[in-house]
Amino acid sequence: MSFAAGLQALDLLGVFFFAVSGSLLAARKGFDVIGSLLLACLVGMGGGVVRDVILAVGIPSAFNDPVYLIPPVLAAALVYVLFNSVQRYTSLLTLFDAAGLALFCISGTLKAITYGANPVTAVLLGVTTAVGGGVLRDITANEVPSLFNAREIYALPAFVGAALTALVWNLGWFTIVTGPAIAALVFVFRVVAWRRH
Amino acid sequence: MSFAAGLQALDLLGVFFFAVSGSLLAARKGFDVIGSLLLACLVGMGGGVVRDVILAVGIPSAFNDPVYLIPPVLAAALVYVLFNSVQRYTSLLTLFDAAGLALFCISGTLKAITYGANPVTAVLLGVTTAVGGGVLRDITANEVPSLFNAREIYALPAFVGAALTALVWNLGWFTIVTGPAIAALVFVFRVVAWRRH
Amino acid sequence: MSFAAGLQALDLLGVFFFAVSGSLLAARKGFDVIGSLLLACLVGMGGGVVRDVILAVGIPSAFNDPVYLIPPVLAAALVYVLFNSVQRYTSLLTLFDAAGLALFCISGTLKAITYGANPVTAVLLGVTTAVGGGVLRDITANEVPSLFNAREIYALPAFVGAALTALVWNLGWFTIVTGPAIAALVFVFRVVAWRRH
Repeated sequence: MSFAAGLQALDLLGVFFFAVSGSLLAARKGFDVIGSLLLACLVGMGGGVVRDVILAVGIPSAFNDPVYLIPPVLAAALVYVLFNSVQRYTSLLTLFDAAGLALFCISGTLKAITYGANPVTAVLLGVTTAVGGGVLRDITANEVPSLFNAREIYALPAFVGAALTALVWNLGWFTIVTGPAIAALVFVFRVVAWRRH
Repeated sequence: MSFAAGLQALDLLGVFFFAVSGSLLAARKGFDVIGSLLLACLVGMGGGVVRDVILAVGIPSAFNDPVYLIPPVLAAALVYVLFNSVQRYTSLLTLFDAAGLALFCISGTLKAITYGANPVTAVLLGVTTAVGGGVLRDITANEVPSLFNAREIYALPAFVGAALTALVWNLGWFTIVTGPAIAALVFVFRVVAWRRH
Repeated sequence: MSFAAGLQALDLLGVFFFAVSGSLLAARKGFDVIGSLLLACLVGMGGGVVRDVILAVGIPSAFNDPVYLIPPVLAAALVYVLFNSVQRYTSLLTLFDAAGLALFCISGTLKAITYGANPVTAVLLGVTTAVGGGVLRDITANEVPSLFNAREIYALPAFVGAALTALVWNLGWFTIVTGPAIAALVFVFRVVAWRRH
Protein backbone atom coordinates (compact mmCIF):
# COMPACT_ATOMS: atom_id res chain seq x y z
CA MET A 1 0.00 0.00 0.00
CA SER A 2 1.39 3.37 -1.01
CA PHE A 3 1.73 6.19 1.51
CA ALA A 4 -1.14 8.13 -0.13
CA ALA A 5 -3.42 5.08 0.02
CA GLY A 6 -2.46 4.48 3.65
CA LEU A 7 -3.18 8.09 4.54
CA GLN A 8 -6.58 7.88 2.86
CA ALA A 9 -7.42 4.62 4.67
CA LEU A 10 -6.53 6.31 7.96
CA ASP A 11 -8.68 9.30 7.01
CA LEU A 12 -11.67 7.14 6.02
CA LEU A 13 -11.48 5.16 9.26
CA GLY A 14 -11.43 8.43 11.21
CA VAL A 15 -14.44 9.63 9.22
CA PHE A 16 -16.27 6.42 10.13
CA PHE A 17 -15.60 6.74 13.88
CA PHE A 18 -16.67 10.40 13.99
CA ALA A 19 -19.71 9.59 11.80
CA VAL A 20 -20.82 6.96 14.32
CA SER A 21 -20.49 9.54 17.11
CA GLY A 22 -22.67 11.90 15.05
CA SER A 23 -25.33 9.24 14.44
CA LEU A 24 -25.33 8.28 18.12
CA LEU A 25 -25.94 11.91 19.11
CA ALA A 26 -28.68 12.08 16.45
CA ALA A 27 -30.33 8.98 17.96
CA ARG A 28 -30.17 10.44 21.47
CA LYS A 29 -31.68 13.72 20.21
CA GLY A 30 -34.50 11.87 18.40
CA PHE A 31 -33.44 12.84 14.85
CA ASP A 32 -34.82 10.58 12.09
CA VAL A 33 -32.59 8.47 9.84
CA ILE A 34 -31.93 11.32 7.37
CA GLY A 35 -30.99 13.69 10.19
CA SER A 36 -28.73 10.92 11.48
CA LEU A 37 -27.05 10.58 8.07
CA LEU A 38 -26.60 14.35 7.80
CA LEU A 39 -25.07 14.66 11.25
CA ALA A 40 -22.84 11.66 10.45
CA CYS A 41 -21.66 13.50 7.31
CA LEU A 42 -21.13 16.80 9.15
CA VAL A 43 -19.16 15.26 12.04
CA GLY A 44 -17.28 12.73 9.93
CA MET A 45 -16.32 15.11 7.16
CA GLY A 46 -16.28 18.43 9.01
CA GLY A 47 -12.75 18.30 10.42
CA GLY A 48 -11.26 17.12 7.13
CA VAL A 49 -13.08 19.76 5.08
CA VAL A 50 -11.84 22.51 7.42
CA ARG A 51 -8.31 21.07 7.14
CA ASP A 52 -8.44 20.94 3.32
CA VAL A 53 -9.90 24.46 3.05
CA ILE A 54 -7.13 25.83 5.29
CA LEU A 55 -4.44 23.88 3.41
CA ALA A 56 -5.91 25.39 0.20
CA VAL A 57 -5.67 22.06 -1.65
CA GLY A 58 -8.59 22.77 -4.00
CA ILE A 59 -11.89 20.90 -3.59
CA PRO A 60 -11.70 19.06 -0.22
CA SER A 61 -11.34 15.26 -0.51
CA ALA A 62 -14.65 14.68 1.25
CA PHE A 63 -16.44 16.48 -1.57
CA ASN A 64 -14.21 15.44 -4.44
CA ASP A 65 -13.99 11.73 -3.80
CA PRO A 66 -17.33 9.85 -3.52
CA VAL A 67 -15.65 7.13 -1.40
CA TYR A 68 -15.91 9.53 1.56
CA LEU A 69 -19.70 9.07 1.48
CA ILE A 70 -19.42 5.40 2.40
CA PRO A 71 -18.36 5.76 6.07
CA PRO A 72 -21.24 8.11 7.02
CA VAL A 73 -23.79 5.87 5.24
CA LEU A 74 -22.40 2.81 7.03
CA ALA A 75 -22.39 4.66 10.34
CA ALA A 76 -25.98 5.89 10.04
CA ALA A 77 -27.17 2.42 8.94
CA LEU A 78 -25.31 0.70 11.79
CA VAL A 79 -26.69 3.02 14.45
CA TYR A 80 -30.18 2.74 12.92
CA VAL A 81 -30.13 -1.06 12.97
CA LEU A 82 -28.74 -1.27 16.50
CA PHE A 83 -30.92 1.63 17.67
CA ASN A 84 -32.97 -0.22 20.27
CA SER A 85 -30.14 -2.28 21.68
CA VAL A 86 -27.89 0.71 22.35
CA GLN A 87 -28.20 1.66 26.00
CA ARG A 88 -25.33 3.88 26.89
CA TYR A 89 -25.16 6.51 24.17
CA THR A 90 -22.76 8.78 26.01
CA SER A 91 -20.13 6.12 26.70
CA LEU A 92 -20.29 4.75 23.17
CA LEU A 93 -20.26 8.26 21.67
CA THR A 94 -17.15 9.13 23.69
CA LEU A 95 -15.37 5.93 22.64
CA PHE A 96 -16.04 6.46 18.94
CA ASP A 97 -15.20 10.14 19.27
CA ALA A 98 -11.89 9.22 20.95
CA ALA A 99 -11.07 6.79 18.13
CA GLY A 100 -11.79 9.49 15.54
CA LEU A 101 -9.69 11.97 17.51
CA ALA A 102 -6.76 9.52 17.62
CA LEU A 103 -6.81 8.93 13.84
CA PHE A 104 -7.52 12.51 12.73
CA CYS A 105 -4.73 14.14 14.76
CA ILE A 106 -2.34 11.84 12.86
CA SER A 107 -3.92 12.07 9.37
CA GLY A 108 -4.34 15.84 9.69
CA THR A 109 -0.71 16.34 10.65
CA LEU A 110 0.57 14.02 7.90
CA LYS A 111 -1.59 15.62 5.20
CA ALA A 112 -0.30 19.06 6.16
CA ILE A 113 3.31 17.78 6.06
CA THR A 114 2.84 16.21 2.63
CA TYR A 115 1.53 19.57 1.37
CA GLY A 116 4.75 21.22 2.54
CA ALA A 117 3.52 22.87 5.73
CA ASN A 118 6.12 23.63 8.42
CA PRO A 119 5.95 21.46 11.59
CA VAL A 120 4.13 24.08 13.70
CA THR A 121 1.46 24.55 11.01
CA ALA A 122 1.19 20.77 10.64
CA VAL A 123 0.61 20.27 14.38
CA LEU A 124 -1.96 23.11 14.44
CA LEU A 125 -3.78 21.56 11.50
CA GLY A 126 -3.63 18.11 13.08
CA VAL A 127 -5.31 19.45 16.21
CA THR A 128 -7.84 21.46 14.14
CA THR A 129 -8.74 18.38 12.06
CA ALA A 130 -9.11 16.25 15.18
CA VAL A 131 -11.31 18.63 17.16
CA GLY A 132 -13.14 20.26 14.18
CA GLY A 133 -15.82 17.63 13.58
CA GLY A 134 -16.64 17.33 17.28
CA VAL A 135 -16.96 21.09 17.70
CA LEU A 136 -19.32 21.26 14.69
CA ARG A 137 -21.33 18.35 16.18
CA ASP A 138 -21.71 20.06 19.55
CA ILE A 139 -22.48 23.53 18.13
CA THR A 140 -25.13 22.09 15.80
CA ALA A 141 -26.72 20.19 18.68
CA ASN A 142 -26.75 23.45 20.67
CA GLU A 143 -24.28 22.31 23.33
CA VAL A 144 -21.10 23.99 24.57
CA PRO A 145 -18.38 21.92 22.81
CA SER A 146 -16.70 19.37 25.10
CA LEU A 147 -13.49 20.93 23.77
CA PHE A 148 -14.07 23.78 26.25
CA ASN A 149 -15.42 21.68 29.10
CA ALA A 150 -13.01 22.09 32.02
CA ARG A 151 -13.70 18.56 33.25
CA GLU A 152 -13.01 16.93 29.90
CA ILE A 153 -9.48 16.53 28.56
CA TYR A 154 -10.05 16.74 24.84
CA ALA A 155 -7.56 19.00 23.09
CA LEU A 156 -4.51 17.80 25.00
CA PRO A 157 -4.53 14.19 23.65
CA ALA A 158 -5.02 15.58 20.12
CA PHE A 159 -2.10 17.97 20.64
CA VAL A 160 0.14 15.19 22.01
CA GLY A 161 -0.79 12.98 19.04
CA ALA A 162 -0.17 15.69 16.45
CA ALA A 163 3.14 16.76 18.04
CA LEU A 164 4.37 13.14 18.32
CA THR A 165 3.38 12.52 14.69
CA ALA A 166 5.32 15.57 13.48
CA LEU A 167 8.32 14.64 15.65
CA VAL A 168 8.40 10.95 14.70
CA TRP A 169 7.90 11.88 11.02
CA ASN A 170 10.79 14.35 11.04
CA LEU A 171 13.03 11.77 12.69
CA GLY A 172 12.13 9.35 9.88
CA TRP A 173 10.62 6.91 12.38
CA PHE A 174 7.02 6.98 11.18
CA THR A 175 6.17 3.36 10.33
CA ILE A 176 3.34 0.85 10.39
CA VAL A 177 4.32 0.28 14.04
CA THR A 178 4.88 3.80 15.43
CA GLY A 179 1.78 5.23 13.68
CA PRO A 180 -0.74 2.91 15.35
CA ALA A 181 1.22 3.24 18.63
CA ILE A 182 0.62 7.01 18.60
CA ALA A 183 -3.08 6.44 17.78
CA ALA A 184 -3.40 3.95 20.65
CA LEU A 185 -1.69 6.36 23.05
CA VAL A 186 -4.06 9.23 22.10
CA PHE A 187 -7.12 6.96 22.38
CA VAL A 188 -6.12 5.62 25.81
CA PHE A 189 -5.17 9.11 27.06
CA ARG A 190 -8.56 10.52 26.03
CA VAL A 191 -10.62 7.61 27.39
CA VAL A 192 -8.76 7.38 30.72
CA ALA A 193 -9.04 11.15 31.22
CA TRP A 194 -12.78 10.94 30.47
CA ARG A 195 -13.41 8.02 32.87
CA ARG A 196 -11.55 9.69 35.74
CA HIS A 197 -13.27 13.05 35.66
CA MET B 1 -29.27 35.68 -21.76
CA SER B 2 -26.08 33.66 -21.57
CA PHE B 3 -25.83 30.59 -19.34
CA ALA B 4 -23.53 32.42 -16.91
CA ALA B 5 -25.96 35.34 -16.65
CA GLY B 6 -28.87 32.94 -16.16
CA LEU B 7 -26.99 31.10 -13.42
CA GLN B 8 -26.24 34.37 -11.67
CA ALA B 9 -29.87 35.52 -11.92
CA LEU B 10 -30.93 32.20 -10.34
CA ASP B 11 -28.31 32.66 -7.63
CA LEU B 12 -29.38 36.25 -6.87
CA LEU B 13 -33.05 35.26 -6.66
CA GLY B 14 -32.12 32.47 -4.22
CA VAL B 15 -30.09 34.97 -2.17
CA PHE B 16 -33.15 37.23 -2.02
CA PHE B 17 -35.51 34.49 -0.79
CA PHE B 18 -33.08 33.31 1.90
CA ALA B 19 -32.36 36.93 2.87
CA VAL B 20 -36.07 37.51 3.44
CA SER B 21 -36.18 34.41 5.66
CA GLY B 22 -33.25 35.84 7.64
CA SER B 23 -34.91 39.25 8.04
CA LEU B 24 -38.17 37.61 9.11
CA LEU B 25 -36.35 35.62 11.81
CA ALA B 26 -34.58 38.84 12.85
CA ALA B 27 -37.97 40.59 13.17
CA ARG B 28 -39.37 37.75 15.27
CA LYS B 29 -36.30 37.82 17.51
CA GLY B 30 -36.56 41.60 17.97
CA PHE B 31 -33.30 42.48 16.17
CA ASP B 32 -33.08 46.08 14.93
CA VAL B 33 -32.79 46.98 11.23
CA ILE B 34 -29.00 46.55 11.14
CA GLY B 35 -29.23 43.13 12.79
CA SER B 36 -31.90 42.31 10.23
CA LEU B 37 -29.62 43.33 7.34
CA LEU B 38 -26.72 41.32 8.80
CA LEU B 39 -28.82 38.18 9.24
CA ALA B 40 -30.19 38.71 5.71
CA CYS B 41 -26.58 38.83 4.42
CA LEU B 42 -25.52 35.78 6.46
CA VAL B 43 -28.47 33.61 5.41
CA GLY B 44 -28.62 34.85 1.82
CA MET B 45 -24.91 34.65 1.12
CA GLY B 46 -23.87 31.88 3.55
CA GLY B 47 -24.67 28.86 1.41
CA GLY B 48 -23.07 30.35 -1.69
CA VAL B 49 -19.90 31.40 0.15
CA VAL B 50 -19.50 27.88 1.58
CA ARG B 51 -20.06 26.47 -1.94
CA ASP B 52 -17.47 28.81 -3.51
CA VAL B 53 -14.90 28.16 -0.75
CA ILE B 54 -15.28 24.39 -1.21
CA LEU B 55 -15.13 24.71 -5.02
CA ALA B 56 -11.91 26.74 -4.51
CA VAL B 57 -12.95 29.30 -7.13
CA GLY B 58 -11.03 32.21 -5.57
CA ILE B 59 -12.91 35.02 -3.82
CA PRO B 60 -16.57 33.88 -3.48
CA SER B 61 -19.02 35.72 -5.78
CA ALA B 62 -20.95 37.14 -2.82
CA PHE B 63 -17.81 39.03 -1.73
CA ASN B 64 -16.36 39.74 -5.15
CA ASP B 65 -19.43 41.08 -6.92
CA PRO B 66 -21.21 44.03 -5.23
CA VAL B 67 -24.48 43.09 -6.97
CA TYR B 68 -24.89 40.37 -4.31
CA LEU B 69 -25.46 43.10 -1.72
CA ILE B 70 -28.68 44.22 -3.41
CA PRO B 71 -30.94 41.25 -2.48
CA PRO B 72 -30.16 41.41 1.30
CA VAL B 73 -30.68 45.19 1.33
CA LEU B 74 -34.00 44.79 -0.52
CA ALA B 75 -35.03 41.96 1.80
CA ALA B 76 -34.23 43.86 5.01
CA ALA B 77 -36.01 46.99 3.70
CA LEU B 78 -39.07 45.01 2.62
CA VAL B 79 -39.41 43.23 5.96
CA TYR B 80 -38.80 46.49 7.82
CA VAL B 81 -41.52 48.34 5.89
CA LEU B 82 -44.05 45.51 6.22
CA PHE B 83 -42.99 44.82 9.83
CA ASN B 84 -46.30 45.59 11.53
CA SER B 85 -48.52 43.98 8.96
CA VAL B 86 -46.72 40.64 9.04
CA GLN B 87 -48.61 38.26 11.30
CA ARG B 88 -47.43 34.76 10.60
CA TYR B 89 -43.64 34.92 10.66
CA THR B 90 -43.15 31.16 10.74
CA SER B 91 -45.33 30.41 7.71
CA LEU B 92 -43.81 33.20 5.66
CA LEU B 93 -40.27 32.29 6.76
CA THR B 94 -40.84 28.68 5.69
CA LEU B 95 -42.23 29.72 2.29
CA PHE B 96 -39.28 32.00 1.52
CA ASP B 97 -36.85 29.43 2.88
CA ALA B 98 -38.43 26.79 0.62
CA ALA B 99 -38.09 29.08 -2.41
CA GLY B 100 -34.41 29.68 -1.59
CA LEU B 101 -33.88 25.96 -1.12
CA ALA B 102 -35.47 25.24 -4.51
CA LEU B 103 -33.23 27.70 -6.35
CA PHE B 104 -29.98 27.02 -4.49
CA CYS B 105 -30.03 23.22 -4.92
CA ILE B 106 -30.13 23.93 -8.69
CA SER B 107 -27.64 26.84 -8.84
CA GLY B 108 -25.21 25.05 -6.49
CA THR B 109 -25.26 21.88 -8.59
CA LEU B 110 -24.88 23.78 -11.86
CA LYS B 111 -22.01 25.95 -10.58
CA ALA B 112 -20.14 22.83 -9.42
CA ILE B 113 -20.70 21.19 -12.81
CA THR B 114 -19.44 24.25 -14.69
CA TYR B 115 -16.28 24.14 -12.56
CA GLY B 116 -15.67 20.58 -13.68
CA ALA B 117 -16.86 18.70 -10.59
CA ASN B 118 -18.00 15.09 -11.05
CA PRO B 119 -21.78 14.46 -10.67
CA VAL B 120 -21.55 13.14 -7.08
CA THR B 121 -19.55 16.19 -5.97
CA ALA B 122 -21.99 18.45 -7.82
CA VAL B 123 -25.00 16.94 -6.03
CA LEU B 124 -23.24 17.16 -2.65
CA LEU B 125 -22.41 20.81 -3.29
CA GLY B 126 -25.95 21.51 -4.47
CA VAL B 127 -27.33 20.14 -1.21
CA THR B 128 -24.67 21.97 0.85
CA THR B 129 -25.45 25.26 -0.91
CA ALA B 130 -29.18 24.79 -0.38
CA VAL B 131 -29.05 23.89 3.31
CA GLY B 132 -25.97 25.99 4.26
CA GLY B 133 -27.61 29.37 4.72
CA GLY B 134 -30.49 27.93 6.74
CA VAL B 135 -28.14 26.02 9.04
CA LEU B 136 -26.09 29.20 9.66
CA ARG B 137 -29.35 31.09 10.34
CA ASP B 138 -30.56 28.56 12.90
CA ILE B 139 -27.16 28.15 14.62
CA THR B 140 -26.76 31.92 14.94
CA ALA B 141 -30.24 32.24 16.40
CA ASN B 142 -29.36 29.48 18.89
CA GLU B 143 -31.81 26.93 17.56
CA VAL B 144 -31.24 23.32 16.50
CA PRO B 145 -31.25 23.59 12.67
CA SER B 146 -34.55 22.47 11.08
CA LEU B 147 -32.26 20.37 8.88
CA PHE B 148 -32.01 17.92 11.78
CA ASN B 149 -35.60 18.18 12.95
CA ALA B 150 -37.16 14.74 12.56
CA ARG B 151 -40.58 16.26 11.84
CA GLU B 152 -39.34 18.53 9.08
CA ILE B 153 -38.42 17.22 5.66
CA TYR B 154 -35.69 19.62 4.63
CA ALA B 155 -32.67 17.88 3.16
CA LEU B 156 -34.64 15.40 1.05
CA PRO B 157 -36.21 17.99 -1.32
CA ALA B 158 -32.79 19.63 -1.73
CA PHE B 159 -31.25 16.25 -2.54
CA VAL B 160 -33.99 15.40 -5.03
CA GLY B 161 -33.54 18.80 -6.70
CA ALA B 162 -29.76 18.53 -6.88
CA ALA B 163 -29.86 14.93 -8.17
CA LEU B 164 -32.51 15.78 -10.80
CA THR B 165 -30.48 18.82 -11.90
CA ALA B 166 -27.32 16.74 -12.34
CA LEU B 167 -29.26 14.00 -14.17
CA VAL B 168 -31.18 16.33 -16.47
CA TRP B 169 -27.99 18.30 -17.18
CA ASN B 170 -26.02 15.20 -18.11
CA LEU B 171 -28.83 14.06 -20.39
CA GLY B 172 -28.62 17.46 -22.11
CA TRP B 173 -32.24 18.22 -21.15
CA PHE B 174 -31.63 21.24 -18.90
CA THR B 175 -33.66 24.07 -20.43
CA ILE B 176 -35.70 27.13 -19.52
CA VAL B 177 -38.59 24.69 -19.01
CA THR B 178 -37.03 21.79 -17.09
CA GLY B 179 -35.04 24.06 -14.75
CA PRO B 180 -38.06 25.92 -13.34
CA ALA B 181 -39.97 22.61 -13.26
CA ILE B 182 -37.34 21.13 -10.93
CA ALA B 183 -37.46 24.28 -8.76
CA ALA B 184 -41.26 24.09 -8.58
CA LEU B 185 -41.11 20.41 -7.64
CA VAL B 186 -38.61 21.05 -4.81
CA PHE B 187 -40.65 24.00 -3.52
CA VAL B 188 -43.93 22.06 -3.51
CA PHE B 189 -42.28 18.98 -1.94
CA ARG B 190 -40.83 21.06 0.89
CA VAL B 191 -43.98 23.08 1.56
CA VAL B 192 -46.34 20.09 1.43
CA ALA B 193 -44.05 18.11 3.77
CA TRP B 194 -43.96 21.05 6.15
CA ARG B 195 -47.75 21.54 6.18
CA ARG B 196 -48.44 17.86 6.83
CA HIS B 197 -46.10 17.35 9.77
CA MET C 1 8.97 49.39 9.12
CA SER C 2 7.65 48.19 5.76
CA PHE C 3 3.94 48.29 4.96
CA ALA C 4 3.69 44.48 5.17
CA ALA C 5 5.37 44.46 8.59
CA GLY C 6 3.11 47.27 9.78
CA LEU C 7 0.03 45.40 8.59
CA GLN C 8 1.17 42.27 10.41
CA ALA C 9 1.86 44.22 13.62
CA LEU C 10 -1.66 45.65 13.41
CA ASP C 11 -3.05 42.16 12.80
CA LEU C 12 -1.13 40.64 15.74
CA LEU C 13 -2.27 43.39 18.10
CA GLY C 14 -5.87 42.77 17.02
CA VAL C 15 -5.39 39.03 17.60
CA PHE C 16 -4.14 39.81 21.13
CA PHE C 17 -7.13 42.00 22.04
CA PHE C 18 -9.67 39.47 20.74
CA ALA C 19 -7.73 36.63 22.40
CA VAL C 20 -8.02 38.43 25.76
CA SER C 21 -11.78 38.77 25.21
CA GLY C 22 -11.91 35.01 24.54
CA SER C 23 -9.93 34.16 27.68
CA LEU C 24 -12.12 36.48 29.77
CA LEU C 25 -15.26 34.72 28.52
CA ALA C 26 -13.57 31.37 29.24
CA ALA C 27 -12.83 32.51 32.81
CA ARG C 28 -16.43 33.64 33.33
CA LYS C 29 -17.70 30.31 31.98
CA GLY C 30 -15.36 28.33 34.27
CA PHE C 31 -13.22 26.81 31.49
CA ASP C 32 -9.77 25.58 32.60
CA VAL C 33 -6.52 27.09 31.29
CA ILE C 34 -6.44 24.91 28.16
CA GLY C 35 -10.05 25.80 27.32
CA SER C 36 -9.05 29.42 27.86
CA LEU C 37 -6.12 29.09 25.44
CA LEU C 38 -8.32 27.38 22.85
CA LEU C 39 -11.02 30.03 23.05
CA ALA C 40 -8.29 32.70 22.87
CA CYS C 41 -7.00 31.04 19.66
CA LEU C 42 -10.50 30.69 18.16
CA VAL C 43 -11.54 34.28 18.86
CA GLY C 44 -8.15 35.83 18.12
CA MET C 45 -7.51 33.93 14.89
CA GLY C 46 -11.09 33.23 13.74
CA GLY C 47 -11.78 36.48 11.93
CA GLY C 48 -8.41 36.48 10.17
CA VAL C 49 -8.72 32.84 9.08
CA VAL C 50 -12.17 33.51 7.60
CA ARG C 51 -10.75 36.60 5.84
CA ASP C 52 -7.80 34.67 4.40
CA VAL C 53 -9.98 31.73 3.29
CA ILE C 54 -12.36 34.13 1.49
CA LEU C 55 -9.44 36.05 -0.06
CA ALA C 56 -8.12 32.65 -1.25
CA VAL C 57 -4.53 33.57 -0.30
CA GLY C 58 -3.42 29.97 0.38
CA ILE C 59 -2.79 28.80 3.95
CA PRO C 60 -4.15 31.53 6.28
CA SER C 61 -1.44 33.53 8.10
CA ALA C 62 -2.65 32.37 11.50
CA PHE C 63 -1.82 28.77 10.54
CA ASN C 64 1.19 29.46 8.35
CA ASP C 65 3.13 31.79 10.62
CA PRO C 66 3.88 30.51 14.16
CA VAL C 67 4.19 34.10 15.43
CA TYR C 68 0.38 34.20 15.48
CA LEU C 69 0.43 31.72 18.38
CA ILE C 70 2.15 34.23 20.68
CA PRO C 71 -0.80 36.62 21.27
CA PRO C 72 -3.27 33.88 22.35
CA VAL C 73 -0.67 32.31 24.67
CA LEU C 74 0.08 35.73 26.21
CA ALA C 75 -3.63 36.48 26.53
CA ALA C 76 -4.47 33.16 28.22
CA ALA C 77 -1.50 33.53 30.59
CA LEU C 78 -2.38 37.11 31.46
CA VAL C 79 -6.02 36.31 32.21
CA TYR C 80 -4.96 33.22 34.19
CA VAL C 81 -2.53 35.19 36.38
CA LEU C 82 -4.97 38.04 36.98
CA PHE C 83 -7.90 35.63 37.33
CA ASN C 84 -8.84 36.40 40.92
CA SER C 85 -8.36 40.13 40.72
CA VAL C 86 -10.64 40.57 37.71
CA GLN C 87 -14.04 41.67 38.92
CA ARG C 88 -15.93 43.06 35.98
CA TYR C 89 -15.54 40.49 33.19
CA THR C 90 -18.22 41.98 30.98
CA SER C 91 -16.81 45.51 30.96
CA LEU C 92 -13.26 44.31 30.37
CA LEU C 93 -14.40 41.84 27.71
CA THR C 94 -16.24 44.61 25.88
CA LEU C 95 -13.22 46.95 26.02
CA PHE C 96 -10.83 44.35 24.62
CA ASP C 97 -13.42 43.26 22.06
CA ALA C 98 -13.81 46.92 20.96
CA ALA C 99 -10.04 47.28 20.60
CA GLY C 100 -9.88 44.12 18.47
CA LEU C 101 -12.81 45.36 16.39
CA ALA C 102 -11.08 48.71 15.81
CA LEU C 103 -7.84 47.08 14.58
CA PHE C 104 -9.38 44.24 12.56
CA CYS C 105 -11.74 46.41 10.51
CA ILE C 106 -8.62 48.28 9.36
CA SER C 107 -6.26 45.31 8.88
CA GLY C 108 -8.99 43.27 7.13
CA THR C 109 -9.76 46.08 4.70
CA LEU C 110 -6.07 46.77 3.98
CA LYS C 111 -5.22 43.10 3.44
CA ALA C 112 -8.08 42.77 0.96
CA ILE C 113 -6.89 45.91 -0.87
CA THR C 114 -3.31 44.64 -1.09
CA TYR C 115 -4.64 41.42 -2.64
CA GLY C 116 -6.34 43.44 -5.36
CA ALA C 117 -9.94 43.36 -4.10
CA ASN C 118 -12.25 46.15 -5.24
CA PRO C 119 -13.25 48.72 -2.55
CA VAL C 120 -16.68 47.18 -1.88
CA THR C 121 -15.17 43.72 -1.39
CA ALA C 122 -12.46 45.24 0.82
CA VAL C 123 -15.02 46.93 3.09
CA LEU C 124 -17.11 43.73 3.28
CA LEU C 125 -14.01 41.73 4.23
CA GLY C 126 -12.97 44.36 6.77
CA VAL C 127 -16.33 44.06 8.48
CA THR C 128 -16.27 40.25 8.25
CA THR C 129 -12.77 40.10 9.76
CA ALA C 130 -13.78 42.47 12.56
CA VAL C 131 -16.99 40.71 13.57
CA GLY C 132 -15.92 37.13 12.67
CA GLY C 133 -13.99 36.24 15.82
CA GLY C 134 -16.65 37.67 18.11
CA VAL C 135 -19.44 35.77 16.34
CA LEU C 136 -17.46 32.52 16.65
CA ARG C 137 -16.87 33.29 20.35
CA ASP C 138 -20.55 33.85 21.06
CA ILE C 139 -21.79 30.88 19.00
CA THR C 140 -19.31 28.55 20.71
CA ALA C 141 -20.38 29.82 24.13
CA ASN C 142 -24.01 29.16 23.12
CA GLU C 143 -25.08 32.80 23.14
CA VAL C 144 -26.84 34.85 20.45
CA PRO C 145 -23.95 36.92 19.00
CA SER C 146 -23.91 40.53 20.26
CA LEU C 147 -23.67 41.36 16.53
CA PHE C 148 -27.43 40.74 16.33
CA ASN C 149 -28.35 42.27 19.68
CA ALA C 150 -30.62 45.23 18.97
CA ARG C 151 -29.31 47.11 22.02
CA GLU C 152 -25.65 46.74 21.08
CA ILE C 153 -24.11 48.77 18.28
CA TYR C 154 -21.48 46.40 16.98
CA ALA C 155 -21.43 46.15 13.21
CA LEU C 156 -21.86 49.86 12.56
CA PRO C 157 -18.50 50.97 14.07
CA ALA C 158 -16.76 48.16 12.14
CA PHE C 159 -18.47 49.30 8.93
CA VAL C 160 -17.53 52.95 9.53
CA GLY C 161 -13.92 51.92 10.21
CA ALA C 162 -13.68 49.71 7.13
CA ALA C 163 -15.31 52.30 4.86
CA LEU C 164 -13.08 55.10 6.19
CA THR C 165 -10.00 52.91 5.71
CA ALA C 166 -10.92 52.15 2.09
CA LEU C 167 -11.72 55.81 1.43
CA VAL C 168 -8.60 57.23 3.09
CA TRP C 169 -6.46 54.58 1.36
CA ASN C 170 -7.86 55.39 -2.08
CA LEU C 171 -7.26 59.08 -1.47
CA GLY C 172 -3.64 58.25 -0.63
CA TRP C 173 -4.06 59.67 2.87
CA PHE C 174 -3.49 56.47 4.87
CA THR C 175 -0.56 57.28 7.19
CA ILE C 176 0.80 56.57 10.65
CA VAL C 177 -1.52 59.36 11.82
CA THR C 178 -4.79 58.68 9.98
CA GLY C 179 -4.66 54.89 10.59
CA PRO C 180 -4.59 55.14 14.41
CA ALA C 181 -7.14 57.97 14.22
CA ILE C 182 -9.61 55.66 12.47
CA ALA C 183 -8.91 52.94 15.05
CA ALA C 184 -9.49 55.38 17.92
CA LEU C 185 -12.74 56.59 16.33
CA VAL C 186 -14.07 53.02 15.95
CA PHE C 187 -13.05 52.13 19.52
CA VAL C 188 -14.70 55.22 21.03
CA PHE C 189 -17.84 54.76 18.88
CA ARG C 190 -18.25 51.16 20.02
CA VAL C 191 -17.54 51.82 23.71
CA VAL C 192 -19.76 54.92 23.94
CA ALA C 193 -22.61 53.08 22.17
CA TRP C 194 -22.21 50.18 24.60
CA ARG C 195 -22.18 52.38 27.73
CA ARG C 196 -25.29 54.30 26.67
CA HIS C 197 -27.54 51.35 25.90
